[in-house]
Amino acid sequence: MAVNLVVPAPDAVHAISGVTIGITAAGIRKKERPDLTVFRLAPGTSVAGVFTTNRFRAAPVTVCEQHLAAGTPIEALVINTGNANAGTGERGMADAQRMCSATAAALGIDAQSVLPFSTGVILEPLPIERIEAGIGQATAALAANQWFDAAHSIMTTDTQPKIYSTQIQINGHSVTITGISKGAGMIRPNMATMLGYLATDAGIAQPLLDSVVHEIADQSFNRITVDGDMSTNDSFIVMATGQSGLKLQSDQDAGWSEMRDALIEAAKDLACKIVRDAEGATKFITITVQDAGNQHEALKVAYAIAHSPLVKTAFYASDPNLGRILAAIGYAGIDDLDVESVKLWLGDVLVASDGSRHSNYLETDGQRVMNESEILVRVSLGRGSVTETVYTSDFSHEYVSINADYRS
Amino acid sequence: MAVNLVVPAPDAVHAISGVTIGITAAGIRKKERPDLTVFRLAPGTSVAGVFTTNRFRAAPVTVCEQHLAAGTPIEALVINTGNANAGTGERGMADAQRMCSATAAALGIDAQSVLPFSTGVILEPLPIERIEAGIGQATAALAANQWFDAAHSIMTTDTQPKIYSTQIQINGHSVTITGISKGAGMIRPNMATMLGYLATDAGIAQPLLDSVVHEIADQSFNRITVDGDMSTNDSFIVMATGQSGLKLQSDQDAGWSEMRDALIEAAKDLACKIVRDAEGATKFITITVQDAGNQHEALKVAYAIAHSPLVKTAFYASDPNLGRILAAIGYAGIDDLDVESVKLWLGDVLVASDGSRHSNYLETDGQRVMNESEILVRVSLGRGSVTETVYTSDFSHEYVSINADYRS
Repeated sequence: MAVNLVVPAPDAVHAISGVTIGITAAGIRKKERPDLTVFRLAPGTSVAGVFTTNRFRAAPVTVCEQHLAAGTPIEALVINTGNANAGTGERGMADAQRMCSATAAALGIDAQSVLPFSTGVILEPLPIERIEAGIGQATAALAANQWFDAAHSIMTTDTQPKIYSTQIQINGHSVTITGISKGAGMIRPNMATMLGYLATDAGIAQPLLDSVVHEIADQSFNRITVDGDMSTNDSFIVMATGQSGLKLQSDQDAGWSEMRDALIEAAKDLACKIVRDAEGATKFITITVQDAGNQHEALKVAYAIAHSPLVKTAFYASDPNLGRILAAIGYAGIDDLDVESVKLWLGDVLVASDGSRHSNYLETDGQRVMNESEILVRVSLGRGSVTETVYTSDFSHEYVSINADYRS
Repeated sequence: MAVNLVVPAPDAVHAISGVTIGITAAGIRKKERPDLTVFRLAPGTSVAGVFTTNRFRAAPVTVCEQHLAAGTPIEALVINTGNANAGTGERGMADAQRMCSATAAALGIDAQSVLPFSTGVILEPLPIERIEAGIGQATAALAANQWFDAAHSIMTTDTQPKIYSTQIQINGHSVTITGISKGAGMIRPNMATMLGYLATDAGIAQPLLDSVVHEIADQSFNRITVDGDMSTNDSFIVMATGQSGLKLQSDQDAGWSEMRDALIEAAKDLACKIVRDAEGATKFITITVQDAGNQHEALKVAYAIAHSPLVKTAFYASDPNLGRILAAIGYAGIDDLDVESVKLWLGDVLVASDGSRHSNYLETDGQRVMNESEILVRVSLGRGSVTETVYTSDFSHEYVSINADYRS
């Protein structure tokens, strides 16, 4: 079902020096399905993250933030799928801590040096004994290049693994960036997506990584939406091991802008892969709102279009029912919007202007664009100079089937 | 498909003295389908309305507001289905005026005394000549009790007509209230719904009617949502002919509170009938948020639950996947929400408290409630004393089918 989602061949996924990964099938929700993953990070690795703003945040998210705030260097990540450990109260906090303790014990490190992550069903307690047993197996299986398999082992309703890997030259150093993500539903991140992990062997000083991680998320995982449902577990982590020899200390350093752009590019690719594999998706839709007065109103309009069930079902039907897009622009919440100034393009076709259908618009032109699997919706608000872009998917019978059947 | 929507027998629908209705098939979108309706109001009738806040409001909405603001007594309504006359620019405004002029000419009244309404497809010009011809036929067919047929003739994707009719005694007068509504998708009214018409033979002074119409809408049409898509055409009209002999001048008059309550009850019934007939609906869901700090946050939480595609598909599947409701409460936008204080009931079953699943909760209890066709979701925020209730429907395969096929 995924829309033009490219999965690289296993041998095209580059290892990151300083990162080893171990995977096992702990039987968390299904038997014999890889569902538990441990990342081991070499000493000297900088780690930064952003997390969901949902007030019902999962226990592991709270523990991640505590451990990052404590300042102890992060040396391992432990990730389970099949159960989100969210809405689980005190028991959930204790279980998240136990995941850290078990990982720490197996690796001979401090529990505060471990970040825990969970994804899956909400409101059910973790099968913590099976997870603790699995952590022993996963840490025993740590190996250099397990990124391809890790992308599989963190999946829930994803149909495809999401992997990005590249090598670039910065300041004479060969730098590698590899990342994975997961997520297909309950996707409307706000400060990060379901789960995203990005690693590089560049060295990035902790304060610099702390400051850039939000910028990366804002240009990638914070610009995608599938169903408008913000998860309880959204987490996005960037790791920089420094083992390539490249060391970046400040945003004034030579090579920093290339490094930042490469990380943003990687995160954007991983974020868009989540949209391409969105539950039931048949289209990948880019919504660009330009000539807005400010970022806030540009995003309000973009998300109003992206979340409208009527717009999403029209895309599913390849129906150029463009009035639904105008209606969404109209209720997006810009109280003084002058609809006479609004222009709407579908792909390269000017559809509406002056508050109505454009005089030259032909339904056949709109239909031609709608038949594509990748569609650009472009809105000019005619109020300013700010542009924002959001990525989303359509709404299909399959979406309903997946979400009506998810727990059964 | 409609959920427990009761359609009264034709002879249980009471005429309103002072209101006659004419209906015809003008061939607006389909041949031989009643699609044009004219209401004729006796002199002395008070009329008030509330309308969509969508910035892409339809031309007839703009004309309605102009004519109501002009202060000329309203003597007729003209309503077409099949085409919304929205996103139609100057041509649309001219067409809405022509609907008024044609109605006025046929009835020998002033065009400013006519309110026009359109519902149906957006962004296409009205077939105004066919509508003008139809207005001639409809005005020629004016008759005393056509409410039952009018409820049919204003339908679009509705599967059932929506009609309310009652008779009550106030101050010794027998007062009749009869109303109709339509709407099944693009329903998230904000100041009114798709189309709702409520008439009474009570006399209600114009200033009193003007002030109460918002209160009525806020307790009925402004508390329903199907898909969160606010229409361009939402209009809700209350008419009071005065022919019962009851005359109410101020909110201090004896009988006013009974009258107001009866009008609210009627509007709530008509609003909930829209939800019961929501596109693809299999469940009628009442969401009550109590112990909120203020109305705004109560409604934010209620609408977050009501609009969540994940919650709506879980209801469709009769799946007590209650974590999805907690997630929606968590992202509703109350930044300082203490999840430890939140309680969640499904029907009479306490599901969650203290930030997690309630210790006594049994999945079989949740399943029992979920199997019903009418479900109450009750949330206590534990922050104050404000209660708000919103009504919505579930999200089914049929919803996708209807909206993917609507124009074809």
